[in-house]
Amino acid sequence: MTDLKSRFLQVYSVLKSELLNDPDFEFTDDSRHWVEQMLDYNVLGGKLNRGLSVVDSYKLLKLGKELTDDEMFLACSLGWCIEWLQAYFLVLDDIMDGSHTRRGQPCWFRMPKVGMIAVNDGLILRNHISRIIKKHFKGKPYYVDLLDLFNEVEFQTTHGQMIDLITTLVGEKDLSKYSLSLHRRIVQYKTAYYSFYLPVACALLMLGENLDNHVNVKETLVEMGIYFQVQDDYLDCFGDPETIGKIGTDIEDFKCSWLVVKALELCNADQKKTLYENYGKDDPACVAKDAYLEYEQTSYEKITNSIEAHPSKAVQAVLKSFLAKIYKRQK
Amino acid sequence: MTDLKSRFLQVYSVLKSELLNDPDFEFTDDSRHWVEQMLDYNVLGGKLNRGLSVVDSYKLLKLGKELTDDEMFLACSLGWCIEWLQAYFLVLDDIMDGSHTRRGQPCWFRMPKVGMIAVNDGLILRNHISRIIKKHFKGKPYYVDLLDLFNEVEFQTTHGQMIDLITTLVGEKDLSKYSLSLHRRIVQYKTAYYSFYLPVACALLMLGENLDNHVNVKETLVEMGIYFQVQDDYLDCFGDPETIGKIGTDIEDFKCSWLVVKALELCNADQKKTLYENYGKDDPACVAKDAYLEYEQTSYEKITNSIEAHPSKAVQAVLKSFLAKIYKRQK
Repeated sequence: MTDLKSRFLQVYSVLKSELLNDPDFEFTDDSRHWVEQMLDYNVLGGKLNRGLSVVDSYKLLKLGKELTDDEMFLACSLGWCIEWLQAYFLVLDDIMDGSHTRRGQPCWFRMPKVGMIAVNDGLILRNHISRIIKKHFKGKPYYVDLLDLFNEVEFQTTHGQMIDLITTLVGEKDLSKYSLSLHRRIVQYKTAYYSFYLPVACALLMLGENLDNHVNVKETLVEMGIYFQVQDDYLDCFGDPETIGKIGTDIEDFKCSWLVVKALELCNADQKKTLYENYGKDDPACVAKDAYLEYEQTSYEKITNSIEAHPSKAVQAVLKSFLAKIYKRQK
Repeated sequence: MTDLKSRFLQVYSVLKSELLNDPDFEFTDDSRHWVEQMLDYNVLGGKLNRGLSVVDSYKLLKLGKELTDDEMFLACSLGWCIEWLQAYFLVLDDIMDGSHTRRGQPCWFRMPKVGMIAVNDGLILRNHISRIIKKHFKGKPYYVDLLDLFNEVEFQTTHGQMIDLITTLVGEKDLSKYSLSLHRRIVQYKTAYYSFYLPVACALLMLGENLDNHVNVKETLVEMGIYFQVQDDYLDCFGDPETIGKIGTDIEDFKCSWLVVKALELCNADQKKTLYENYGKDDPACVAKDAYLEYEQTSYEKITNSIEAHPSKAVQAVLKSFLAKIYKRQK
């Protein structure tokens, strides 16, 4: 484990302990125990990429100047807020999707005794973010901006999830509702804001920056987030199940995957008929396999150009570090 | 309909229209339509007591001075935020409880095509509150206090709900886990803060008050909220189904009702045995019927005393208006 990761995990222990002893609620022993189990099960166990990238970005923006202990703790705390946000979305998404496993273990709501209590646990995860931010950032000049930021990103994510859910509902009967622009809208709102923009925005706020002055950073990161999700759709279908750790089921689930919307765009009337008849059953998405390679190249160039257009070398370094993590990934 | 109520409903139309045209999200026609249906179904249809009480309290605190159009709109908006909060809790509680009806119609998640999408709709309802507050209060000196207030009250409510859920889980096997102090803790956190304290706190913030200076107002309102919930437990069992509009099932559902915890406290070993054997099946809670009348009287006196101890006549008027609405209610 890297030093950073072990430092990051130490901060988790501190935050958890604070939450379990929050003076604004009188815990019973049972409920304190419940929350502890729930946190360890749902907040830990992922790769922690989103959380760690707050600290990485903050370091890059400080141009290599050493972080104080206090700065390190605060950057890690905001990183954990994003991990908590992710846990909140995943716990509830799994219920909505009727999923069975997550990160190689049963979904939280599938655990004996949990069931639909998981809905409330999801809400508690969200509330914890406000508690963490209040405890450690109240009084800072950017406190209100942090609250606004998490609220805005949550708003965008739940709205992206809504379009995804409604589209799948309609798409099962009418594939023609799927389009590239709809796919873009879903992934932009549902994934890109919280996974790519949010970590950098947290780091910028900690440095005293006004986010209104960084609209282009936001756009580039959202672009990367969309690219990341297209990769995900591709890997779901063509990735090596051994490497990605799961067997994709987007086709079977009638998902509005990039592959199917691209295929719909590319194919002629006859092929479209075959696609309509077979989607949700078999695997006709290979029509779009070559198109993906082209997409990957074009996206990479577009993103690289916007990065190089940025006036600050430090911001360029942050954006490049994100791109390096995802370009041509196999999992 | 009163003038106030029709004014209040006009504000609903304005807020809804703003949310459906929020520039921070690109709605599809389908998703805009979905949110509109979802709002009308879940936010409307209640008695609107909590929301209207923000406006009533604000008026009383202004000592009868006429409200400007702007003040009226803002007070109504905060009232609606509480109604939105209530809708958010109810949509998700119904899923957790596996309920069938709410306000005389099927629960939202029971509607055809909705199902588990209702989970995300619940989150959207919560996000709407942040949007409404941001749109209409950003820039006011109490903006950050409003955000903190709604976050704090939501935190307390979800934690109260957690104890309730866990207690019912354990209580089904072991009734001895139920006690008056646990009952008090559940209803205090789950109901009292958001139903009684929140409306008055909103009105106080609009008047520029610091909530830290009103801890006694909070305590009195929370006391009333607890009293209100004990009434609810009593009416669930002994109220006239015609009048209260539903047939209570607390006993059958093993709920930690005030009647059963009071009965457990009052009865002797033999009676306790009978209670253990019969709770969840039949109706042994009449042991506690007389005790309720005594509780009602004692509570009323205690609350009245704390109201009269308050230095401000305006605050007294607010607190008395709440008490008058609930004392000896039949539904």
